[in-house]
Amino acid sequence: MKESGIESVLVTHLPDVRYLCGFTGSNAALAVTAKRAAMFTDGRYTTQAREETECARVVIAKKSALREACAWLEASGAGSAHFDPGMTTVASLDLMRDALSKGKRRGFFQPLKRPIVADLRMVKDAEELLRMEEAALVGCHLFSAVLPHLQPGVTEQEIAADLEFFARNLGADGMSFETIVASGLRSALPHGRATAAKLPRRGFVTLDFGVILKGYCSDMTRTVHLGKPGREEQVAYDAVLEAQEAAVAAVKAGVTCGEVDEAARSVLRKARLAKYFTHSTGHGVGIEIHEMPRIAAAQEQRLAAGMVITIEPGIYIEGKFGIRIEDMVAVTESGGKILTPAPKAMIQL
Amino acid sequence: MKESGIESVLVTHLPDVRYLCGFTGSNAALAVTAKRAAMFTDGRYTTQAREETECARVVIAKKSALREACAWLEASGAGSAHFDPGMTTVASLDLMRDALSKGKRRGFFQPLKRPIVADLRMVKDAEELLRMEEAALVGCHLFSAVLPHLQPGVTEQEIAADLEFFARNLGADGMSFETIVASGLRSALPHGRATAAKLPRRGFVTLDFGVILKGYCSDMTRTVHLGKPGREEQVAYDAVLEAQEAAVAAVKAGVTCGEVDEAARSVLRKARLAKYFTHSTGHGVGIEIHEMPRIAAAQEQRLAAGMVITIEPGIYIEGKFGIRIEDMVAVTESGGKILTPAPKAMIQL
Repeated sequence: MKESGIESVLVTHLPDVRYLCGFTGSNAALAVTAKRAAMFTDGRYTTQAREETECARVVIAKKSALREACAWLEASGAGSAHFDPGMTTVASLDLMRDALSKGKRRGFFQPLKRPIVADLRMVKDAEELLRMEEAALVGCHLFSAVLPHLQPGVTEQEIAADLEFFARNLGADGMSFETIVASGLRSALPHGRATAAKLPRRGFVTLDFGVILKGYCSDMTRTVHLGKPGREEQVAYDAVLEAQEAAVAAVKAGVTCGEVDEAARSVLRKARLAKYFTHSTGHGVGIEIHEMPRIAAAQEQRLAAGMVITIEPGIYIEGKFGIRIEDMVAVTESGGKILTPAPKAMIQL
Repeated sequence: MKESGIESVLVTHLPDVRYLCGFTGSNAALAVTAKRAAMFTDGRYTTQAREETECARVVIAKKSALREACAWLEASGAGSAHFDPGMTTVASLDLMRDALSKGKRRGFFQPLKRPIVADLRMVKDAEELLRMEEAALVGCHLFSAVLPHLQPGVTEQEIAADLEFFARNLGADGMSFETIVASGLRSALPHGRATAAKLPRRGFVTLDFGVILKGYCSDMTRTVHLGKPGREEQVAYDAVLEAQEAAVAAVKAGVTCGEVDEAARSVLRKARLAKYFTHSTGHGVGIEIHEMPRIAAAQEQRLAAGMVITIEPGIYIEGKFGIRIEDMVAVTESGGKILTPAPKAMIQL
């Protein structure tokens, strides 16, 4: 805050609140000045807030946690308070201003130029890296455990049920996003949620899933083949795998996100498959499933040691099939460390 | 739109987009004028958008779906476009303005005075009511199925795993929120997520969970007792049940939400337990788990036939126990119809 010349900050995005003070409830406003911090929530969380919150006073708001946080910031003597414009709705900003005394309403709240908490969250410390490694390993265990269940005639939903049941029983708090099980022609849908469709006797099945473990998300994708793949399937799979490995090999502190994206994309370009790669190569992951940085074309953001990103190129050929392979990768000074040690060579079931 | 004197609307809240045109992807901006509608998304959703979207042209944006939607609205000839300030971040509004030609940036985007899509979504049509009834019934089946698993020594997480596994196998797309299993002293936490804690030999267990079925959420809570309840537990349980039934009995088209809340609260006040009832009585439910209206003290909003709300009073006595009982209730002209036909008399296991 001092570096950025910021007197005080109002943090309302819940994952940011959790990151800064540990509180995990569904209603919170954290007010921070150079000297003090107060976390405002409501009566449902009296006990939980006291147990979880560190480095901030807990205030149980009578009416609105947000309004009381704003009044506290005004009373703190700070001349202004910054907020994250990417995480604050137009209506919330109106409420925030309305909570101030009349003379202060203009100019007290200022948009942050950089999302400073997201910037902090982007680089994980040693404890966070351990948790993420653990979450990613649970993901790998789920994948091994579900493989024998991938049989023709089983529904995508049954596979999702199995994955989620194993996840809970390995201690996960839940899944980090809606489980994707996309089989046969449906594998050509990049975001094919698990449906009542039955796994075919022959064809790809894409599994994209993650768990939340001790507050941190994992994310992984594997595409397996039921029956013997044709030549086109095998060639396409090998190209996606080569693209994925090229992008992982490009990961290193100091490299731009655009360069990592290009490493994957250029492999698929040479294989004449780039037009089927319709999304970006990856994203940061942590307390949230999608965090900064974005691993996409032309992104100038540079990787730094401690970031955790996904590398997940894929191709989707409508009416035929789709393939995606995804690892979580921790950025180090010397390269990328794969956190998802599950096999990537084509698995034929 | 005509009634409110609105020329065009930009809809970006994903559940609103889904409600209006059926598209379920994770990136969408729906632009609507008096005569035309266009739904903007990205290349990941080319096939899915074409399959799902009704009543709007599908546009696959090259760069930003949001920017292209704004440019389309400007080109449509509308003099202004309204947006929902409760669902639009300060940063998004900047982007939206920036997508316009320079002369238009001031004043083209106007905040809606009422969240018109949320207002529409609040009242469910016959097909939606059927889906919600079905979702609520799946919830009841889960409750029956998990009862035999509620044994001393089993962890809360194992119970959550069972519930979620049954849900998937009954066709649910997933859970509508993080499953709450709060046992023993933890039942005094209104939002006690399932943890590694073991169910006690004696004490309450609160289960609060819901499924997503065909796009609609269910939500229900039951509190059961392991072992024989003491007199204080029984008296408190009976009071919460009486409060819950009083609020359900108060539900009827034309009644204010505040009156329904007061029906529950006054029962607990007479039982000298109102100070432990630290949240509101309920909320609307539908495509999202929390929708309008809010069933809370002094809410002037009137119920209308077709609304679906939860009625869920609870008490939380720190260091002792907590109890919550929740049904989904459809509002009709003549009263409330309970969608959650699971037993509410105290279950002793």
